[in-house]
Amino acid sequence: MNNRLKTIEWKNNCARIIDQTLLPEEIVYIDVDTLDKMYHAIKILQVRGAPAIGVAAAYGLYLGVRDFDDGAGISKFLNHVDERAAYLSTARPTAVNLFWAIDRMRKFAQDNSSAANVSTLKKILLDEANRIREEDLQMCRAIGEHGFELIKDKECILTHCNAGGLATSEYGTALAPIYAGQERGVTFKVFADETRPLLQGARITALELSEAGIPVTVICDNMAASVMATGQIEACIVGADRIAANGDTANKIGTYGVALIAAAHGIPFYVAAPSSTFDLTIPDGAHIPIEERGREEVALWFGTKKTVPDKAMVFNPSFDVTPSKLITAIITEKGAIYPPYTENIAGLFRVVDVR
Amino acid sequence: MNNRLKTIEWKNNCARIIDQTLLPEEIVYIDVDTLDKMYHAIKILQVRGAPAIGVAAAYGLYLGVRDFDDGAGISKFLNHVDERAAYLSTARPTAVNLFWAIDRMRKFAQDNSSAANVSTLKKILLDEANRIREEDLQMCRAIGEHGFELIKDKECILTHCNAGGLATSEYGTALAPIYAGQERGVTFKVFADETRPLLQGARITALELSEAGIPVTVICDNMAASVMATGQIEACIVGADRIAANGDTANKIGTYGVALIAAAHGIPFYVAAPSSTFDLTIPDGAHIPIEERGREEVALWFGTKKTVPDKAMVFNPSFDVTPSKLITAIITEKGAIYPPYTENIAGLFRVVDVR
Repeated sequence: MNNRLKTIEWKNNCARIIDQTLLPEEIVYIDVDTLDKMYHAIKILQVRGAPAIGVAAAYGLYLGVRDFDDGAGISKFLNHVDERAAYLSTARPTAVNLFWAIDRMRKFAQDNSSAANVSTLKKILLDEANRIREEDLQMCRAIGEHGFELIKDKECILTHCNAGGLATSEYGTALAPIYAGQERGVTFKVFADETRPLLQGARITALELSEAGIPVTVICDNMAASVMATGQIEACIVGADRIAANGDTANKIGTYGVALIAAAHGIPFYVAAPSSTFDLTIPDGAHIPIEERGREEVALWFGTKKTVPDKAMVFNPSFDVTPSKLITAIITEKGAIYPPYTENIAGLFRVVDVR
Repeated sequence: MNNRLKTIEWKNNCARIIDQTLLPEEIVYIDVDTLDKMYHAIKILQVRGAPAIGVAAAYGLYLGVRDFDDGAGISKFLNHVDERAAYLSTARPTAVNLFWAIDRMRKFAQDNSSAANVSTLKKILLDEANRIREEDLQMCRAIGEHGFELIKDKECILTHCNAGGLATSEYGTALAPIYAGQERGVTFKVFADETRPLLQGARITALELSEAGIPVTVICDNMAASVMATGQIEACIVGADRIAANGDTANKIGTYGVALIAAAHGIPFYVAAPSSTFDLTIPDGAHIPIEERGREEVALWFGTKKTVPDKAMVFNPSFDVTPSKLITAIITEKGAIYPPYTENIAGLFRVVDVR
């Protein structure tokens, strides 16, 4: 039953990832052993989901510096780390966890510039990457506990895209409360929006939940309103790519529509995300840059079948922004945050600061 | 510029249709010269859309009787018409316009049994089929005129699915106001929801608009909320499959979500449909039966690529119901109807009754 997939782990001196572009037809593991391969894996979404990208970036940066000349000296090594970090930062434009993890690794290297030698510094950089993975797992478990408390009296949950175990190192954020329920013998029924254009809901969420033995029903994105109108949904839980200081939340395109439709039916709408997803330098959603991706994702199915005529244009924004007024609560590893968000989000970080 | 596609027309003693199964990759015309070929064309959706199916059926029935022995006598000819009509009626199980057009042709033959001879009766049966096409075109043009009056101060219009010229003989219903604008030198910019699972918006709406020289941008269904939030849509127009006595409207799945999202942004939401779409025997949307279709439409792309794992379930309702309170106006060939709908829809049919 409980066969949760391992998204990313360190094994045999490589970052071992599931190639998510092949899901759900094949579950194929790739041993990523260079920075270039990790850059590629992040860029083409072999590894995706904010927390998993953070872990991947940490391992990726380590892979990018591990072959540096051990005799060149700490100072040159730190320059090399910075160079490799700058390169890796360009793999995806919107994923704050990418920048966060790269920055943490860079600072860790700088803070340990007194290491005996480059070889030692490399070794503890790998330790730090492993620590990022382990913290991610603990964070997901904590989100699961807090989220479960909010939905334990519900039965049918709708989710959008994949903020599951396959978006983190394991366990997930939006799906963590579902898995936490399963560990307590509580089985939720999940509706998964397929999530065009890349179908992360159909391919990934449906895969990981059904592999874990949780009943999941895939619907097209445009069916969510109808399913809610017929009383089949009691709560929505989604992940987040970036949360502004006022709680406005950038997440996979379509999330905002789900939030509007849930509000129209009086259904609670939860965002589940680690506190690292908050970007307090951004006052509100209007300031979150939105990635636009290529025409082919919409117009060519798996690069083979043309579904949009050449003379027509395509608009393909990857994310949208859900205003915080539509969000019932934001579930973090430190607990759930309720409105008023600006105040309560600031409060969350003040607690962190004085810890 | 104005290169509107002709879905079906009578040319060189054949019904010339566009093979819609090949769209949008190829625009191929088929000269349908026998009843069997028309039966096949209707069955495999080479011709589709309720009004277009009606026109196709009328031509199909004529094709099925035109080679009947002119010397056999009117009575035997009428029997032959009935036989061919019964056969053609089995091409699609639920298309009301199919039965309506066949019935009209049969009755027309019976009403003209005093014709001088079989040859004359055949000739006026073709006239009747041409009349059905012409009436469809006039109906669409009237919807276009009335609809254009409502949107003429707008620029950007969103539509869902295909209620365009390719669902009628030409011109369409939801797209008719767009074409009416073009004839007056007013160019609208159209956003077309791709409309999962069968992508009628991407494949068909985008094709006919771009072929006609109207700028059209395809988006995934789940992008409509984001596009509306960023101020890029000023009105929505959709078609209808059935409208209840209170104005509740069944249309392609996803329409209800578009209506909710439009309402949340204060964007007018119009339904465009001929008066034949109203079903006054149905008091409200809760009484409209909703077809559920197979798993493969969602889970298998063009029957080839698996997008949902086998262990996951799929729910695939084909239509949803938009409550009339979300509809700004219903545009018919007789003019626009506004709330209160129950009263004003009844009024529309009272006018028709006393005419």
